[in-house]
Amino acid sequence: MIDNTQTETELERQAPKETERFDVAIIGAGPAGMSAALGAARANLNVLLIEKALPGGETSTACKISNYIGFPKGILGEDLGKRMEDQLNDYPTITHVCESVTDILNISDKEKIIKTSLDSEYKCQAIIFALGLEPKRLDTNFERQFLGRGVSYYARGDVEFHHEEDVMVIGGGNCACYAADYLSNFVNKVYMVHSKDHLRAVKSIKQSVETNPKIDIFWDSKVSEVFGIDRVEKAKVENTVNSQHTWLDVKGIFVYVGRIPPEDIISVEIDTDEDGFIITDEFMRTNIPGIYAAGDIRSKQVRQIATAVSDGMIASINVERDFFR
Amino acid sequence: MIDNTQTETELERQAPKETERFDVAIIGAGPAGMSAALGAARANLNVLLIEKALPGGETSTACKISNYIGFPKGILGEDLGKRMEDQLNDYPTITHVCESVTDILNISDKEKIIKTSLDSEYKCQAIIFALGLEPKRLDTNFERQFLGRGVSYYARGDVEFHHEEDVMVIGGGNCACYAADYLSNFVNKVYMVHSKDHLRAVKSIKQSVETNPKIDIFWDSKVSEVFGIDRVEKAKVENTVNSQHTWLDVKGIFVYVGRIPPEDIISVEIDTDEDGFIITDEFMRTNIPGIYAAGDIRSKQVRQIATAVSDGMIASINVERDFFR
Repeated sequence: MIDNTQTETELERQAPKETERFDVAIIGAGPAGMSAALGAARANLNVLLIEKALPGGETSTACKISNYIGFPKGILGEDLGKRMEDQLNDYPTITHVCESVTDILNISDKEKIIKTSLDSEYKCQAIIFALGLEPKRLDTNFERQFLGRGVSYYARGDVEFHHEEDVMVIGGGNCACYAADYLSNFVNKVYMVHSKDHLRAVKSIKQSVETNPKIDIFWDSKVSEVFGIDRVEKAKVENTVNSQHTWLDVKGIFVYVGRIPPEDIISVEIDTDEDGFIITDEFMRTNIPGIYAAGDIRSKQVRQIATAVSDGMIASINVERDFFR
Repeated sequence: MIDNTQTETELERQAPKETERFDVAIIGAGPAGMSAALGAARANLNVLLIEKALPGGETSTACKISNYIGFPKGILGEDLGKRMEDQLNDYPTITHVCESVTDILNISDKEKIIKTSLDSEYKCQAIIFALGLEPKRLDTNFERQFLGRGVSYYARGDVEFHHEEDVMVIGGGNCACYAADYLSNFVNKVYMVHSKDHLRAVKSIKQSVETNPKIDIFWDSKVSEVFGIDRVEKAKVENTVNSQHTWLDVKGIFVYVGRIPPEDIISVEIDTDEDGFIITDEFMRTNIPGIYAAGDIRSKQVRQIATAVSDGMIASINVERDFFR
């Protein structure tokens, strides 16, 4: 959809010439990618920022972000994503494109070529992988059957369909707890279904979930069946210890069982750890010269916005040091 | 100075009982220290945050911060420091005190004791050093003679004394450039005096300084003499290559020749690199169990708010993992 109020400059920036050559291409416009773009632009590099969805990455789908310092009372993921994007608009050397990367040619050469789903080819000297993670699927039939019709991986985006209804969150980690806590503000009841007998989350959010009267937790449990004519209507929760089961009238099922590296990146020959996370040194360099990684996709201990933003900045600084000095 | 509008709670938090025991003490309330406090408080730890000056650390003295993503058009250091502080106020388990640390007793024991300039003794299990850096002195007579009377290390704090006057910035790195650029908005003329023949700064700010009509740069130069009856009146700039000199009528001299670890920390037996920066592993652990370091004081490549905030969060997470699980 073309917005006629766009200025010529904005339109140009959305449609770079296919033959254009960039100093650095950043794949993924979450906090790591946007911080990398900021750092690269400040070093006067010609930056291509490729994002297949909305800028902000997974951040934009987050309910409330309280662990990135500088935002009293926390900030909605969507708002933080927007602020990050706005900040990049101060730098004319950043070109945003909304495309999916399909392939990277000549990855070990000095000039690498990025191919996208829109058949564009972008040439660049360095690439920063900042793809973030994707929600892990449970790999169940009901997910495939009801995705978009009651089953969701994004509480914030899909809560609007469930006002005053009963919903379910599957999972027991940080993200599951945040989602349950967030959903409880809008829905009638949240049932958490967790495979273990305790939550694995930051203590403050854990307490808040455990004491929330609108949240009931099913421990040592899984969802074994979902029923619905057109959309989710009921889910069967089974206790894996005593095999007892309960049918719950839930209209929404939010799956929060972890986040994994996107599969499409695996085709590139970059060293990863056993879980598929990209291995880098402290300068964010991968095993391939000119290829860097930043943010949650990296093999590292702490995956937060704060660490992603730091990674992105470090990656951009090293691109500049390694190639443009 | 007591502000009578303070609530009882605020007063209590400013005056913890001397015998109180904290899970973790964080020394320094800059971005690293505040991010560490945030992370620790979110893990429900009982946090003591010790800062000898204003919260925000050196950040609060920064002119404009543009490299921390989330703030379109940048943000004044003072404002960012305030926002960080406000965010910590959401967590009742953080106790702020405004004191200088004078000594740390039993540093290798399970219970460490922090002594301060106000004769307080605080007991804690873990300590995060987040002291940041201090402005490096040139170690000249004129600095000692005119400090606070024309010589300053903080452009933002002291610019108000020099509206429409001519001032000087000594240095040629990032901070010197930012200071010169910032000062040029308020003063009549900025002379930069730099020991080398080129600026060593991020390209965008470098360009902005080099093309700013209000900024003149003296290359390969140093200030060899400063004259003034009571305050700075004139400074002699000497070219170190051709020995020519010029007397300039400047009323302010801003020294920006680098930042170094605070000396008082050196007395503690922590492993540092040859420049005095604290060595840690990727988990922010120092060589002493229970002692962590975060932010600019760490031996590392990139010193920015983004990396400091990341360090602080990682340190707090590892304090929790190492001691409270």
